[in-house]
Amino acid sequence: MLAGVTEHQHGYADHKDAHLRRLKRVEGQVRGIARMVEEDKYCIDVLTQVSAVTGALQTLALALLEEHMGSCVVDAAKAGDEQAKEKVAEASAAIARLVRS
Amino acid sequence: MLAGVTEHQHGYADHKDAHLRRLKRVEGQVRGIARMVEEDKYCIDVLTQVSAVTGALQTLALALLEEHMGSCVVDAAKAGDEQAKEKVAEASAAIARLVRS
Amino acid sequence: MLAGVTEHQHGYADHKDAHLRRLKRVEGQVRGIARMVEEDKYCIDVLTQVSAVTGALQTLALALLEEHMGSCVVDAAKAGDEQAKEKVAEASAAIARLVRS
Amino acid sequence: MLAGVTEHQHGYADHKDAHLRRLKRVEGQVRGIARMVEEDKYCIDVLTQVSAVTGALQTLALALLEEHMGSCVVDAAKAGDEQAKEKVAEASAAIARLVRS
Repeated sequence: MLAGVTEHQHGYADHKDAHLRRLKRVEGQVRGIARMVEEDKYCIDVLTQVSAVTGALQTLALALLEEHMGSCVVDAAKAGDEQAKEKVAEASAAIARLVRS
Repeated sequence: MLAGVTEHQHGYADHKDAHLRRLKRVEGQVRGIARMVEEDKYCIDVLTQVSAVTGALQTLALALLEEHMGSCVVDAAKAGDEQAKEKVAEASAAIARLVRS
Repeated sequence: MLAGVTEHQHGYADHKDAHLRRLKRVEGQVRGIARMVEEDKYCIDVLTQVSAVTGALQTLALALLEEHMGSCVVDAAKAGDEQAKEKVAEASAAIARLVRS
Repeated sequence: MLAGVTEHQHGYADHKDAHLRRLKRVEGQVRGIARMVEEDKYCIDVLTQVSAVTGALQTLALALLEEHMGSCVVDAAKAGDEQAKEKVAEASAAIARLVRS
């Protein structure tokens, strides 16, 4: 972006705006859930909204992960075996957290 | 059940404040993730935060569900078989959404 | 099953055959995955099968849970507050294990 | 890459025996669950076993995935951008199935 900057760009740089819009929407949904609890809405309806937010966050996480693999992991693979190994282990740990959360 | 009781109390009435505090914290975490994306933080660190929020929402959902079963489902069971059946089916659908989200 | 037995029937008694058929199918799928690994099949195809089995087990778990709530939890609710509380806590712990597994 | 190398080795080649042992154990656990259902064991105990099997399969899936990324995805990244893109998309779809199953 800046002259002379040869920095590694993160995987999600191209989709930053889409991610920020999604997070804005999630933030609004979380506030909506708080309002529902505040107004004593029916438990099951609150739960439906919680599942919707969890789903939206998972969609975001999967997108971030795909972009990360397509840039950081691929770049590491080209750079050498040690770097590749490190990035793969790191991505795998993130996937495990996602699967188990 | 008692004279003068106007409304069925939702399961989470006793823990309303705790839920609202948790949701406030989740809202702050979501804003924090947006800030990380805005500032081009490392993908894996963003993902770690997303998993933390998903985990917090799941803890909330499990608490809401337990409170719902302990009040609405139990009350329905006392009220009659038809009501019980309906509430159990409804709770099961909510659990399925949770497990699969 | 036996004359004079007034024992509490488990929730899944009515669907026992369906559950056993499903488990038989899952067992076959697991053996199929072992065969794929044995024959060095492509990782992604193995993973697709693992996800299919996980999904089948989750469907089974959700069915068992619904049957459990519709019988054991409902019966406990009719029996008294203490019993209800205990069964709800137990079911909630099982749901949490399911959501997090 | 090296002369004389006949075939691309799958990511899990090195851990084949460990995977087969794990699958053998899972198969035994599934048969154990069928036996529990057959013998009318308590629903919650059956559910605990189902969660254990689901957890074991997820551990297997995460291991397969890490090995896949460390070999097939890394090899594709070295081979060229098109190949890398394809493998990353394929791995991402597998991760999504895993997260949502």
